[in-house]
Amino acid sequence: MAPSRVVESGQDATGVSVNEKQQKQQQLTPAQATRLLARRNKITSTAGLAPGYLQANLLVLPGEYASHFADLCARNPVPCPILGITPRGDPHQIIPGDCIREVDSLTEAGDEELLKLAKTSPNGVPSGSDSTETTEETSTVPGFDIRTDIPSYKVFHGGKHVSTQRDILSEWGPSHVGFLIGCSYSFEDGLLAAGFSLRHHEQGTIVPMYKTNIPVLPAGVFHGSKFIVSMRPFRAEDVEKVREVTRPYLPTHGEPVAWGWEGAKEIGIRDVDSPDFGDRAEMKEGEVPVFWGCGVTPQMIVEAAGSRVEGVVMSHDPGHMLITDLTVEDLARLRK
Amino acid sequence: MAPSRVVESGQDATGVSVNEKQQKQQQLTPAQATRLLARRNKITSTAGLAPGYLQANLLVLPGEYASHFADLCARNPVPCPILGITPRGDPHQIIPGDCIREVDSLTEAGDEELLKLAKTSPNGVPSGSDSTETTEETSTVPGFDIRTDIPSYKVFHGGKHVSTQRDILSEWGPSHVGFLIGCSYSFEDGLLAAGFSLRHHEQGTIVPMYKTNIPVLPAGVFHGSKFIVSMRPFRAEDVEKVREVTRPYLPTHGEPVAWGWEGAKEIGIRDVDSPDFGDRAEMKEGEVPVFWGCGVTPQMIVEAAGSRVEGVVMSHDPGHMLITDLTVEDLARLRK
Repeated sequence: MAPSRVVESGQDATGVSVNEKQQKQQQLTPAQATRLLARRNKITSTAGLAPGYLQANLLVLPGEYASHFADLCARNPVPCPILGITPRGDPHQIIPGDCIREVDSLTEAGDEELLKLAKTSPNGVPSGSDSTETTEETSTVPGFDIRTDIPSYKVFHGGKHVSTQRDILSEWGPSHVGFLIGCSYSFEDGLLAAGFSLRHHEQGTIVPMYKTNIPVLPAGVFHGSKFIVSMRPFRAEDVEKVREVTRPYLPTHGEPVAWGWEGAKEIGIRDVDSPDFGDRAEMKEGEVPVFWGCGVTPQMIVEAAGSRVEGVVMSHDPGHMLITDLTVEDLARLRK
Repeated sequence: MAPSRVVESGQDATGVSVNEKQQKQQQLTPAQATRLLARRNKITSTAGLAPGYLQANLLVLPGEYASHFADLCARNPVPCPILGITPRGDPHQIIPGDCIREVDSLTEAGDEELLKLAKTSPNGVPSGSDSTETTEETSTVPGFDIRTDIPSYKVFHGGKHVSTQRDILSEWGPSHVGFLIGCSYSFEDGLLAAGFSLRHHEQGTIVPMYKTNIPVLPAGVFHGSKFIVSMRPFRAEDVEKVREVTRPYLPTHGEPVAWGWEGAKEIGIRDVDSPDFGDRAEMKEGEVPVFWGCGVTPQMIVEAAGSRVEGVVMSHDPGHMLITDLTVEDLARLRK
């Protein structure tokens, strides 16, 4: 289902017919608004923004390694579920096309207005919005650009992280291929909708992530790496329900890869209180750790490949995702 | 590319025009001939039969577990690459339809004639065949039946293997769903074509298979199992070439999951000379073990699920595969 444009909801809600000019201005979706804010460097973490839209991890590779990485994703869909790929050297398009519904230009709007829109769900009315109050500014800006529309990027040389940047305009070359990989923010929406609370949300911290002993199955130059998993605590008796709720989210890591204290040991995690990335999540009495595949894994894959990958590799900065135009409703179709 | 019918090659080779009646008789493909021989219990191992056709592992589950197993395959495509699925309760059809090109009835022929045909490649002429010598027998038999067209089956109750049988006619029920899973015989053809020899072929033994520590990522009732891998020895300097040759065979396990003595240890194999299934393969000076995902894994998954799966589960008997109508030429398309 395509997300309704906000203007339509505005019309439904208010019954006020808006003129052509205003209509054009208001055709930005919450996803587009969030990407514009990212381009302007007005947001940091994308957690909680554009609710209902799928967020994506990014990995950009020199073209000669693209088929190897595509094979790796096909062999390891749990940590590396591909949502879309750029054509070689083209930062303005994602295939399949519904991942980013490309437009030549976007209507410009003020930061405040965009922020309001960015907090809106696909079919919702921006909280406190009134379509007739919109500013009359009508200038436009260029459409989607994967090099700018993520809040923060990491750059790698020879498998080593060399810098963190606000854009990758000068690093992107004519052979580069970008991979969008599903993100756990999507299944977290499902857990919240099912009435569960998430400890890292309660704490206001980053979800804890761990290195494991689960091998990423090799493909071409990419071998020698292990799964990174994210962890959320749940009551032991809720684990089956948690598995069931997240099962349909196959394109965004799906159900857990392991659970329980014994499960933690089996995948090589000795101390749940000492995550390798992110922040510690408090474990309460009667709770057990539940582990999911994690989109940080591709960065570990690049590090493990080391000097086997020549040229500049780029990724999103963890927590700073790309907001896609796909919605939770698209998930069933994405399962194929 | 659809396999040419043998009669066409016969006509090309001999220039002799055959009459309508004979043409109808000869429309059996090598794959169909092999399945008919399996139905008559005239063959045991399918190794080397119907060269160029993809062979498949079978797992049959009560319908209520079918979606869980489909999810498991989607999450673990290296050990469990799905080639096709039966509709619920229908043993005569596979979806997608080109996996088994279903026909209502097959032309009957003698065992000798079928065996000759079964050793033919998709576009080849049966060795020593002469289309004008064919018997005039014209009776037909029913078309594809997954319950009879595999040489040997295993039956499981509560995760335990209870019997090995020539057919599963009395076990198959109205809710059963059959899964066809890709088989390494396919990529072995690729290795042979690239000029490599296979130790278990030289020895005339079954490929050695091992339990590993690589977890099969859980889905629904199916959790707690590990990968089974098959092993073939190659010279250390040939490993990269071997990886490259088998890389395109994604729907039939694809490239290796591990290689080398260190690689063996990492996936939990301590003694390469003591396989858990199949026969020991002699390792020669300068050779290292190379490991692939293996279609015996689904049987381990059923054993690990144990009493979580109620009802009768069936599988092929290892080495006794289903010959599909898919050919090596179809592999590229199957990669999606």
